Order: sequence, then structure tokens, then C-alpha cells
Amino acid sequence: MTQAAERILHAGLHSKIMTAEQAAEFICDGMTLAVSGFTGAGYPKALPTAIAERAKVEHAAGRPFSVGVITGASTAPECDGVLAAANAIRFRSPFQSDPTLRNNINAGNIAYQDMHLSHVEQQMRQGFYGQFDFAIIEASAITEDGKIIPAMGIGHANEAVKVAQKIIIEINLAQNIKLNGMHDVQADIGTPPFRKPINILHPFDRIGVPYIDCDLDKIVAIVFTDAGDRNSKFAEPDEMSKRIAAQIIDFFSHEVKAGRLPKNLLPLQSGVGNVANAVLAGLMDSPFDDLLGYTEVLQDGMLDLIIAGKMKCASATALSFSPDALQRFNDNIDFLRDKIVLRPMEFTNSPEVIRRLGVIGMNAMIEADLYGNVNSTHIMGTKMMNGIGGSGDFTRNAFFSFFVSPSVAKDGAISCIVPMVSHHDHTEHDVMFIVTEQGMADLRGKSPRQRARLIIDNCAHPDYRDQLHDYFDRAEKAGGLHTPHLLNEALSWHQRFVETGDMRVK
Amino acid sequence: MTQAAERILHAGLHSKIMTAEQAAEFICDGMTLAVSGFTGAGYPKALPTAIAERAKVEHAAGRPFSVGVITGASTAPECDGVLAAANAIRFRSPFQSDPTLRNNINAGNIAYQDMHLSHVEQQMRQGFYGQFDFAIIEASAITEDGKIIPAMGIGHANEAVKVAQKIIIEINLAQNIKLNGMHDVQADIGTPPFRKPINILHPFDRIGVPYIDCDLDKIVAIVFTDAGDRNSKFAEPDEMSKRIAAQIIDFFSHEVKAGRLPKNLLPLQSGVGNVANAVLAGLMDSPFDDLLGYTEVLQDGMLDLIIAGKMKCASATALSFSPDALQRFNDNIDFLRDKIVLRPMEFTNSPEVIRRLGVIGMNAMIEADLYGNVNSTHIMGTKMMNGIGGSGDFTRNAFFSFFVSPSVAKDGAISCIVPMVSHHDHTEHDVMFIVTEQGMADLRGKSPRQRARLIIDNCAHPDYRDQLHDYFDRAEKAGGLHTPHLLNEALSWHQRFVETGDMRVK
Repeated sequence: MTQAAERILHAGLHSKIMTAEQAAEFICDGMTLAVSGFTGAGYPKALPTAIAERAKVEHAAGRPFSVGVITGASTAPECDGVLAAANAIRFRSPFQSDPTLRNNINAGNIAYQDMHLSHVEQQMRQGFYGQFDFAIIEASAITEDGKIIPAMGIGHANEAVKVAQKIIIEINLAQNIKLNGMHDVQADIGTPPFRKPINILHPFDRIGVPYIDCDLDKIVAIVFTDAGDRNSKFAEPDEMSKRIAAQIIDFFSHEVKAGRLPKNLLPLQSGVGNVANAVLAGLMDSPFDDLLGYTEVLQDGMLDLIIAGKMKCASATALSFSPDALQRFNDNIDFLRDKIVLRPMEFTNSPEVIRRLGVIGMNAMIEADLYGNVNSTHIMGTKMMNGIGGSGDFTRNAFFSFFVSPSVAKDGAISCIVPMVSHHDHTEHDVMFIVTEQGMADLRGKSPRQRARLIIDNCAHPDYRDQLHDYFDRAEKAGGLHTPHLLNEALSWHQRFVETGDMRVK
Repeated sequence: MTQAAERILHAGLHSKIMTAEQAAEFICDGMTLAVSGFTGAGYPKALPTAIAERAKVEHAAGRPFSVGVITGASTAPECDGVLAAANAIRFRSPFQSDPTLRNNINAGNIAYQDMHLSHVEQQMRQGFYGQFDFAIIEASAITEDGKIIPAMGIGHANEAVKVAQKIIIEINLAQNIKLNGMHDVQADIGTPPFRKPINILHPFDRIGVPYIDCDLDKIVAIVFTDAGDRNSKFAEPDEMSKRIAAQIIDFFSHEVKAGRLPKNLLPLQSGVGNVANAVLAGLMDSPFDDLLGYTEVLQDGMLDLIIAGKMKCASATALSFSPDALQRFNDNIDFLRDKIVLRPMEFTNSPEVIRRLGVIGMNAMIEADLYGNVNSTHIMGTKMMNGIGGSGDFTRNAFFSFFVSPSVAKDGAISCIVPMVSHHDHTEHDVMFIVTEQGMADLRGKSPRQRARLIIDNCAHPDYRDQLHDYFDRAEKAGGLHTPHLLNEALSWHQRFVETGDMRVK
């Protein structure tokens, strides 16, 4: 009981300690679960496997067993992966990135709703997902008076324990006990129509308390685990990513000179991925100091900016590090604790706060079209990759909204600049800058046709420019000169890829 | 000078009074103008014609003359119409609805950027549109100390006078002098990253002052006019609109019963059009009292709810009435002045405020697709109708977001439910309810395929249901079972209409 004594200071809760297998018995077919987790951090490590095993037993006995799972964002193989492999998920929202789960979604086995992350907690609260039977959340500790200290990610965990009928907590012994104090979990913001402002006026403002509060009577089980987060290795920025990043950093200098951006820029949001990481790496050697971060997921790049003293502070909902960066985080946690704040995702992704702070949003895309519409989610229009995540929350409300991608994929067989995107996640109304290794298109104050010429000439790969110009020229000749398109050809590049494995016209 | 004495109390400004023709001489080729006006209210009535005449003279002399025009939203024939007819517009943003202007946009003569209205003022302020040479704004009066009292619409007028190098004011004698006090024009909200909250916690909260403040030295001309706003006649709700409206009102009752909506609903936003008007008319005979309005444009329906005591108060950026309703407004202005507040559009359309208040957004659409994506702007994918206006600001941030349309147009030749929308303004991530006269689809918590079946069976016209099921079934068989599509057929309905004038397969 040393573990319990150290991590669960509330004596009354010790009686709830049990094994994951015992706790999984509470979960029944047809239930809806609010499961913590955000981009490979803060997800339960033991319960999902135990529930998956229970599902297999039920299925073997010829009984149905599947649940709805609403998380913060993506989790990991030992959460989404094992549940999907056991055919234990009926409905899933709002974001995922697990290969097994993805394959099941695209095979039609799992109903998946792809959501703006800022909508999730309010829609849980408003009852739009129906009743939540259980919240299953990871924590690093429970205080003497029963307050729950989250671990490396908050996501929707605060809301999960509020709306769920019953709660199961996983105390993860692998998580640093010194995380206590780094969270800012909000108190009540009220119910419409008389909700209060979210008083975050600076990325580091704290508006709540450093713990999750819940009705202790709802806790039916506490399980111990001792396992790391997903902690995927980070690739060193490649040449392609560095070229994209360099343009964004040059552009910042240009905008500072033009007086449209303060000298220390504006709070940075960076999506997950190599290019985002390269931009942050590039800022390390830039002339910009006293940077601020206001992002969903804080990864290696931003951590290193803070440790190096280039970034003053950052707000996020989850910490998602490589194993090396996790080590640096734990080594420096006393230095970092007043420079990093972790919040529920309804605050990190809040349109109110993002617009107020004037965040610079930088997100990866799958493809963009001639007019600046962006597809962030679908492969060839039909198959889900991961989801929109917070990219819409940031893009719509950012001071600057960037979308980045190499200009081609699959050795040139796929162009990331297409006549019409095969799925629309961000429309022409929201997208300001498209950046590839070829160049950048500044779409501010431009009509669709003005955008098209810029995007083709600046961003498309040379192998595709003639093909794009040809489409655009013929579309212009067909009339409808606001947004020229050939409706029977607009998606033909994707169809060609599906049929031949190549978007190029041979 | 009685007119001037009554309407311009600041004596020093009397020297700036001149004719519209004289004032138009200030406007030169290549300039960018911030012109007030929002949905047929608050636009200058005399200057545009004078500028158009000047353009004609210049063109006749073989000299170029065209300007960029950034308004609040749509204006009227005597503003956008005359300028477009004189080929005097080079660039136009963010919204329009004038037939002559629209034709010129679709003929490729005018570059038009269709924008979320909540973005306009901040992008003007941030310099994203470049320099504004002139602001031309309508006002009802100027106070003793040079404060400008707007007329029936504010839109971006407050920002226009701040960013423009020089200002021309049209004092409209036809506007009720008692409008003074009904506006709430905001003071400074600061510059990112340290902008302050927009402290509107209730639709009727006032956070500013009832006038527009400007540097009086920038005023180069004041012109008198005496002409009404656009004041289009309102059609009585037809059977179709009433059937759509009845479903929405029934749904409200259902959600109140389920505890997801307060008894007096939540603040209502209503787009322009017959269906929107029918919903408001329907609320007149509903069991709901103490209603609140938080909308862009306040029209006849909302006015009548307020006069009848069904609605307590409403916030808008413009008043756009039929001639009859204008009479009722003027007759009741003393009763209405503490029940209607007019604000700059960056506040009426603010994501921060809309989400905080939990607004119920109801907007018209051109078409929706199987998965809940909505086209609000384009005819057959290429031609601009009006623009997105504030529909995106409200839809994304609303508590409930409705899109409404009759299920067919052009005597059945066009289905408003299509396999894939020909232009995306609101994505599956933002749209909660699709309503036609056939029925309603509640898309909350549903995956794309679950949505498709609902939308076809509940919303599509019976003439198109088999055709839609056929497409969907074949798309499912093609694989890609998250969002099934046949890429070479997804836009074929629109192509068929372009070629044959009918979306139906004969």
C-alpha cells in the first residue's frame, strides 16, 4: 500500500482499489464511455485492454459487446488499438490516429464522428452525445480531499467526470508526481445564455484550480498502472520540412517589418508533425525572443524553446514528447512548472481565447485546392486519416492561419495542390497562407481567381503546374468566372489516382 | 442651413458641407474605400452615384477609374449597383447581393473576396486589406463635440473611420433623429496578444458608447441626403416556409422538454429570407415567451415579436425593414429604444459572444449533401450568389445550428440535397440540423453514413430519394466506408443540370 499511500492521499478511496480486470466488469455492452487522452498522453493504459479482453469473452460466448468511446483526442495502441482490434467500439469521437481503429472506421465497422475539439466538452455537457455511463480517466495522484491531479494531458477529462454516471480512475505511477500544480482546470463557466467570459488574457493566465473536482461517490474503481505515454520518437527535420519552415520564419520577419506583427510575434500554435516541429526548431536560431505558445499539444520543439529561454511560457492541453524530450522535461520540471500550463481542451481550443490572443496557427494538411480550400482529414475523399482535431478552432480564429505540406507525396504520384480538394475541412474563408517547399501563397485580400494563380505558381510542384494551369484555363473558358471549375473533372485527379496510382496525366 | 443646424451640431464641421458631386472629386482611380452599409441599411445613398458618374467621365476620356470597395455587407442598387454598372469596382469584399454587381463578379470583371463578417474589421485593423484611402459612411447626425451618430446600420463603419486616411460623411435626413442612443459602438478592445474580453454577457449589455468617434481632421466632406434604405417588401410566409418553420418550433419544444434548452429558448439568430421570417412569425403564436435576439440583421419578424412583447430585447448590427415595418419601428421608437441595440458587426458576429450566449443559429442554404456539408454561396459550384455573410460565424459557434431550404428549386429541377455540394461553406463539422419542408435531420453525434440515411429519408424530396439512395448504395460498394463517394459522379448532378436544365435522371 505504499503506492496507494503516496498517490492516493484520500484514505476513503483506498477501498476502491482493484485490478483493471475487476474494474472492466463494470463496463457493459451498449454503454457510452468518456475516456481521457489527448494525442498520446493522458489516456488510460490498463482498462482498455481489460475491456477488450472482456469483449472477446462476450463475443466468444455469442453475446454482443461494444461501447461508444468519446476521448479528448487520439490515444495509443493500448487504448484505441486494443479496443478496435477486439471489435469493442461501436461509435468513436472526436479524433483518432490509431491504425487498427482507422482501418475499422474505413471498413465501415465503427461509426466515427470527426469533431472540432472545442465543441466536444460543451456538447457533452449539453447532452448532445446522450448519457455517459462511465468516465475512465488517467491521473497522477489524488489529494487528501479527493481532488484528482491529471497526468500529461487533460483534454476533456474534467468534463468527463462531471457528466458520467460513474468514474474509474487509473493512477499511473510512471507519471511524475511533480506534475501537481502545472494544470489549470477550470471552475464553472456557467450555462447559456448567461455564461461568463473565459478570462485568459495572456497564455499563462490561470483561471481555475490545479485539479479535477468530482463527486467522489461516483468513483467505483481505482486501478494502478505504471506505463509510459505513447512517446513516439521524433524525426529530425528533413530538408523538405526545413525549406517550408524557413519561408514561414522569413515571412514573420517581413510582417514584423511591415508593422503587422509584434517583435516577439504572437502566441504560436503548432499542429503535430514534422513540418510543425521544423518551424519550432527553426525559431531556435531566429532573431525572435520572448516567444509565447498557445497550442493544443506541446511537443519537443516547443519544450526546447522554453528550456533554451527563447519562449517565455506556453499553454497546452497535453504534453506529447519523444522519450528523449520526456527525459529533458522531467530533468527540468522545477524550471518548467511556472512556464507550462495544461488546461482542458475547451480552453486551449476556445475561439474566444484564440481570437483574443491573436494566435498564429500552423497546421499540416493533406491537400489544398486552387482556391485555398483545405482537406485535413480524408484520403481520396472517402477514407478517414485522423480527424480535424483543433485545426479548425485555430484556423478560423487565428491572427495568421498557415497550412503546410510538401507539394507532392508518394514519390510525386500525388499532388498536394489539386483542382478541388476531395474533402473540405477548412474553406476559402478560413485559409490565409498555403506553404509548400516550393513557396508560399498569401491569400489575404484575394479573390478565388487571384488565389489560383498564386497557388499554382508558388506552391504546386513543377511536375503538376502545367496540368493545373490547363485545368484552370479550361475552367475559366467554361464560364462561371468567380470560382471556375469543370464539374466533371474537378475530382478526376483523385479518381485517376484510385485507378492508376498516379495523379499525373501520362 | 436649418438641416445642418439640426443634424450637425458641431459648428466647425459646417464648412465641410458640399454636394455629392464635389465630394466625389476626392475619389481617384486605384483607391480603396471602406463604405458603410449592411444588408440594405446604413449605406451612403448619394456618393456612390456621384462616384459612378465620375468613373463614366474618366472612362469616356480614356482614363482608367476603378476602386476597391469593402463594406459591412450588402448595400443597394444606388450603391453597389451604380458602381458596378459604371465599371468602377476593381475589388469587392466581404458580402454583396446586388444583381449588377453579382453579374460582373461572375463575368470575371470584378475580383470579389467572400469573407466571414466577423473577420472584416480585425483584418482592416491588422492591415490585411492594405491602406484605406477613404471611408464613406452614412450617419443620422453629428453631435456638438463631433461624435457621429450612425443610422439604421453600423456594420464596419466604426472601424472604417479609424483606418481610413480621409472620411466623407453622408448625413441622411430621412433617418429618424431618435436613433440617437440605440447604438452601442465599442471603445478599444486592444491589440493582440493582449486584447480584452468582449464583455457582452447578455444580448442587451452595452459595452461602449452610442456614437462613432473619429479624428475630425480626417473629415474632408459632409454631404446631405434624404433617401430611404433599401426597405424591400417582405413576402408573407408561404406554405413551404411555414412547414419548415413548424418543425423547428416543434423541435424547440422537444428540446425544452428534454432539458437541453431553457423555457425561453436561447438568443435567436436568424438569417435573411422567407424561411427565417416564417420561423419568427411562427414564434409569435408559440408557447415561448421572454425570447432574446442576438442576430446580424433585425427584420420584420423580430421587430414584431418585440412589439408584441414576446421578445424582451434584441441585438443586431442593422435594421432592415419592409416599408410597413419601418413605419411600425418609427411609430414605436420610444418603446423600442431600450429593447434594440445596434453594434459593430465584429461584436454581433463575434465567436466569443455567440458561443458564450449559446445562440440558436438559423440560416438559409443553397444545398446540403449526404454528409451534412452546406453550400451557402455558389450556384452550380462556380457562380457567386451573395456570400457567406455571418452564417459561418453563427453556425460554428451556435448552441444549435440549423440550415433550412425547400427540398427542391426550379419546379423540381434542382434538388437541394445532393451527393456532394458543389461548393463548401459549412462543413460536416459545423452543421447540426438540416430542415426542409419534407422533414428534419438531427446530425448530432452521428457519423457520415448515419447522417446520409437520415438526410435522404427525412429531408430530400421524394422525387430524388431513389436517386440519392442509388448513389449512396453504389458509393458504399466502392469502399472507403467512412465517407462513401463516387469521385467521378459526386458532382454529376450539377453537371447534368448545367447541360440539361434538370438534376433528375430521366
